[in-house]
Amino acid sequence: MSTSPDADGAAAPRRHYARRESEFRPSPVRAVFELALDPRYVSLAGGNPGTADLPHEEIAAIADRLLRERGAEVLQHGSGAGVHSLEPVIAALMARQGASVDARNLLITTGSQMGVDLATKLLCDPGDVLLAEGPTYVGAMGVFGAYEAELRQVPVDADGVDREAVEEALARAEREGRRVAYLYVIPHHQNPSSTTLTLERRRRLVEVCARRGVLIVEDDPYAFVGFPGNDPLPSLFSLNPDGGIHLGSLSKTFSPGMRVGWMAAPPDVRDRLQIAGESVDIHPSVLSQEIVAAYVGTPSWREHLDALRAGYAQRCEVLLDALAEQGLVGVRWTRPSGGFFTWVTIDGVDPDTDLLAAAIEHDLIVVPGSSCFVQVPERAAVRLAYSNGSPGSLREGARRLAEVVRSLRGE
Amino acid sequence: MSTSPDADGAAAPRRHYARRESEFRPSPVRAVFELALDPRYVSLAGGNPGTADLPHEEIAAIADRLLRERGAEVLQHGSGAGVHSLEPVIAALMARQGASVDARNLLITTGSQMGVDLATKLLCDPGDVLLAEGPTYVGAMGVFGAYEAELRQVPVDADGVDREAVEEALARAEREGRRVAYLYVIPHHQNPSSTTLTLERRRRLVEVCARRGVLIVEDDPYAFVGFPGNDPLPSLFSLNPDGGIHLGSLSKTFSPGMRVGWMAAPPDVRDRLQIAGESVDIHPSVLSQEIVAAYVGTPSWREHLDALRAGYAQRCEVLLDALAEQGLVGVRWTRPSGGFFTWVTIDGVDPDTDLLAAAIEHDLIVVPGSSCFVQVPERAAVRLAYSNGSPGSLREGARRLAEVVRSLRGE
Repeated sequence: MSTSPDADGAAAPRRHYARRESEFRPSPVRAVFELALDPRYVSLAGGNPGTADLPHEEIAAIADRLLRERGAEVLQHGSGAGVHSLEPVIAALMARQGASVDARNLLITTGSQMGVDLATKLLCDPGDVLLAEGPTYVGAMGVFGAYEAELRQVPVDADGVDREAVEEALARAEREGRRVAYLYVIPHHQNPSSTTLTLERRRRLVEVCARRGVLIVEDDPYAFVGFPGNDPLPSLFSLNPDGGIHLGSLSKTFSPGMRVGWMAAPPDVRDRLQIAGESVDIHPSVLSQEIVAAYVGTPSWREHLDALRAGYAQRCEVLLDALAEQGLVGVRWTRPSGGFFTWVTIDGVDPDTDLLAAAIEHDLIVVPGSSCFVQVPERAAVRLAYSNGSPGSLREGARRLAEVVRSLRGE
Repeated sequence: MSTSPDADGAAAPRRHYARRESEFRPSPVRAVFELALDPRYVSLAGGNPGTADLPHEEIAAIADRLLRERGAEVLQHGSGAGVHSLEPVIAALMARQGASVDARNLLITTGSQMGVDLATKLLCDPGDVLLAEGPTYVGAMGVFGAYEAELRQVPVDADGVDREAVEEALARAEREGRRVAYLYVIPHHQNPSSTTLTLERRRRLVEVCARRGVLIVEDDPYAFVGFPGNDPLPSLFSLNPDGGIHLGSLSKTFSPGMRVGWMAAPPDVRDRLQIAGESVDIHPSVLSQEIVAAYVGTPSWREHLDALRAGYAQRCEVLLDALAEQGLVGVRWTRPSGGFFTWVTIDGVDPDTDLLAAAIEHDLIVVPGSSCFVQVPERAAVRLAYSNGSPGSLREGARRLAEVVRSLRGE
């Protein structure tokens, strides 16, 4: 039972919400979405991919052709499994990570977010334990809350999540008689820490989880946005196709506006995910799926992706250089090999500080590190996204962050 | 804990699924989606709108322009609230049903299905009672199952659901100490019975529910596809904007392939629905939303909608005439004033018969009436869709249905 003031500050009627409502948390990225559109602010919060340099005319021509030639079909209902033309496109992407999949494994979704929702819906009862990296993706934490799971986080070092820490967490849950619904991992260029799980650790993690009968949900939207020279490692799914669910997305390599991603899972799991998905949104947009199928995998897309990856690397460099130029003592950041983010830890600031509020005071928007943990973290931290900022805004963002830090430290 | 044979019939590994998994039911429409594409079958199952007569070139030109002129934006992430340009479009539609809404009430979704999912996520704990019409929409039943609600159905007559029956069900739940999460109603051209709730009954229903503090979830995708002369009645939401959630869809009046619909709710409820929605799919497709915003409400769309409505009325006539021509005794059907379906009851056939399997034997696909009830219904019935069939297929469908009936009766 909850009550709340409404938009005008007047008391809203008493409503009886489901118990899970008390766990609903707006993602800090989404909560400031409108604010970030105000040019007064520099936002390093949203993990937006570069869409300005996409070949808009070419994509327009694809959409135009699909609507003219197959309008009745692409404007109609589609299958809950997705359109057939996407199967080879997805299978080719997954093959580049060592996995062999076909229609029996694949389910098209509106993106990784829905993948996390459906996996949790299928696997997690209220009160179950979910293991994830610490820090982890804030959007996944929203899902875990909505399903009333108890999130336990496993520390991440430069090589990703450690097998021993996972084993310890699994053993603890067993001692306590608690069920672990699944292990949630972002193996490439992790959001938010930017670490990539090494191949050796992938092997060990898969082995530990298989032995304990715990499924791995591998959320892998950044696999293909490694900086030049950083191609994807074998997926956890490829190392044990029966042991988990792989979530893929076209949002980072093409367009988040399309809302097209996928899940790969053992057939018995995949079939249940489709039923769960159909009850959530029936099927993803047919037009979007066909646009993706016609563009992703083409030479033009490969060229765009190469340029994107080089561009992300450059932007990352600009941001890291700008951070270094601030000459702040006790501020450290991760050095990404791909992805969208760097994770900045800040000594001499209380980890419990509301860093988003503090940043907004300086016309800066960031994702506060504390939002990526279920408990107060050891160190104050922020996630900075460089993926879609201009060099000027990245430099200005670093400058404003330094102001925030100095101000919080009373310097 | 469930086990199941996999696609090859071999035993799949034992998996531990969430408890709700035992309630997952594939919709019969979705389960036969691929089969229905086989030209051997006549399908009167899927409630597909007419998309063949949409002005494909005009829509192609809209998409083309959006992608060329605003490519970086429509291919990028959008707000979880939806794009601003849709607000006046939706507000105008709702005004035609007597409701006054703005951004504080509105949330864009991927369609009514997601609306049912989010409303249930927000309002319904496992074991709560949900009231709905009997028969009701199979896709909503999938949602109710996924949230482990106990569905109780209230009979429908020619004027829709009856206030007294609802009052009785509410009183019973109260006596039993059971919470009623909400009342689910499809007020126009109900799926599957094709009845429309009269204005008098709307008023009474709203009053009863307000008195008991039970929210109404009004799923209203068919409001604007009444046959010529059948314009929408005031929405339940318009009669008590604080008492419920209105679900709207552009799938019936424009395109289900776009995946764009909306929810309207009191602001305190709406804000929670947005948080719930962002954790499911972040936001609906920006490109789809902008296409809808640019087309729906234009003179061209109004012309298309008029033609659609006339076309649905004609197709309905063809199907009802063809049913009459079969001369079956003890077979009755509803006479729609709009929407996509007629509900056919069949005397002399066991209500527990698997009518889908029986129909498939005769190369016909229908939605079995029993799938629209949580308990075995009083009468054997099928839902027939005329919305997207050719006159030939509608006639052939009626002929095959007659075969099915005669065969089941041993005639």
